[in-house]
Amino acid sequence: MNRQEIIESIRFKKSFLCVGLDPEISKIPPQLLKEKDPVLAFNKQVIDATKNVAVAYKLNLAFYESQGIKGLETLEQTADYIPKGIFKIADAKRGDIGNTSTQYAKAFFETMNFDAITVSPYMGSDSIKPFLNFENKWVIILALTSNPGSNDFQMLKSGEEYIYEKVLKTASTWGSPENIMFVVGATHPEAFQHIRKIIPEHFMLIPGVGAQGGSVDDIGKYALNNDTGVLVNVSRGLIFPSNDYSFPENIAFSANEYQKQMSVYIS
Amino acid sequence: MNRQEIIESIRFKKSFLCVGLDPEISKIPPQLLKEKDPVLAFNKQVIDATKNVAVAYKLNLAFYESQGIKGLETLEQTADYIPKGIFKIADAKRGDIGNTSTQYAKAFFETMNFDAITVSPYMGSDSIKPFLNFENKWVIILALTSNPGSNDFQMLKSGEEYIYEKVLKTASTWGSPENIMFVVGATHPEAFQHIRKIIPEHFMLIPGVGAQGGSVDDIGKYALNNDTGVLVNVSRGLIFPSNDYSFPENIAFSANEYQKQMSVYIS
Repeated sequence: MNRQEIIESIRFKKSFLCVGLDPEISKIPPQLLKEKDPVLAFNKQVIDATKNVAVAYKLNLAFYESQGIKGLETLEQTADYIPKGIFKIADAKRGDIGNTSTQYAKAFFETMNFDAITVSPYMGSDSIKPFLNFENKWVIILALTSNPGSNDFQMLKSGEEYIYEKVLKTASTWGSPENIMFVVGATHPEAFQHIRKIIPEHFMLIPGVGAQGGSVDDIGKYALNNDTGVLVNVSRGLIFPSNDYSFPENIAFSANEYQKQMSVYIS
Repeated sequence: MNRQEIIESIRFKKSFLCVGLDPEISKIPPQLLKEKDPVLAFNKQVIDATKNVAVAYKLNLAFYESQGIKGLETLEQTADYIPKGIFKIADAKRGDIGNTSTQYAKAFFETMNFDAITVSPYMGSDSIKPFLNFENKWVIILALTSNPGSNDFQMLKSGEEYIYEKVLKTASTWGSPENIMFVVGATHPEAFQHIRKIIPEHFMLIPGVGAQGGSVDDIGKYALNNDTGVLVNVSRGLIFPSNDYSFPENIAFSANEYQKQMSVYIS
């Protein structure tokens, strides 16, 4: 999926909502546990309930890999179930030396047909460049993450700049706004305007809204560019509203509320 | 496997060799391609050829995950085949926010029974601490990696210190030399003595010998502590010596040569 297609999808749906499919088994509604694959059944209901307002889905690999081979089957089948035209993100946070990164790129972009993969910048250029050799595929590089531990190294100063700023400046030279996005947590709203000066054109993938406390309005006011330029992920705060039989309706309602909040900021 | 058991294994075998099981399909000897699972057949032959001198095996997840579900089966069966008493490392380079890291920890430590997992420090403390809650299990944190891209961010200065030094100092406070190791590439021999002053007791997992050009002698002279304190990984430089029928003998020969080189430095 290319940049223009993402932008058109955002304008058409008047939404920059990315739904995080992070299915914790213990939180799945009990009536689904009798299904052959409860996680897949749950994901399908979440997708059906949100596909009209979601422009992206993000699948956090940990929740699938922790279930072993069965989990990987669920991952593939979930990815297949996502409708065409919605951006598919493998939230894998990978990054390894060149020949290994190429293996990962093939796995996620070719075998599983994801549009994007999240990667950690710590190992530097040759750990990320192999992902940039695939047409209309994306790497989403961790810059300033939404968790408390983001203060440990990302917020260290090197000269006058934070490490996360060095990551934005250096990593953005490895590709273009057509194949690189950056992760910027919604829990750092004070940084949005500053980050927009460093990367005026790039898309940001913004986690941390919902359970982690970030706000759509802060993003709408301070993080957008002329192409909108953000995908805002909500996982736990959206997909586990209640455990009763009406859960798909509750999820659809919450997703629509997010869409309404977002629509105000889309020109 | 606890620290004392690792040290005893090193002293018994007079070796600190870790064999990297990174099976690139294109390099597997052709006579194995007729096997039902060529990668598993290859790994078993490598393990049989090296188990007398290897104190650890490191499985780079990328090579398995890139083969989809079949690859994950190969991973589990390979891990099962490694003899008891040899340290098993899942080279996954993971790291995510707390609830996600816990999922990964369960997958690798409980479902698959690895002794250790490699993790990236970029997301900070709460991405790594969940891995430290498992008895006799280890996290191996990337500090100074062996690839050229290690210069991009790890070698940035923050105040008087490099970022990788900050990682060593900060991350070593999250656990102890009983449950944390650090990755330090053999391609930075000039840094070994300095790193030993920062982490006198911790084990280092040292990649970069062989194909990447690092030397066992530099490690033996500058990186060891009184408990030896290193595991030196060789992957491509060891497991792909030739494609003919004598490959297991060639691998055994190379592994024994590494052991001889290493034995000189073990007291």
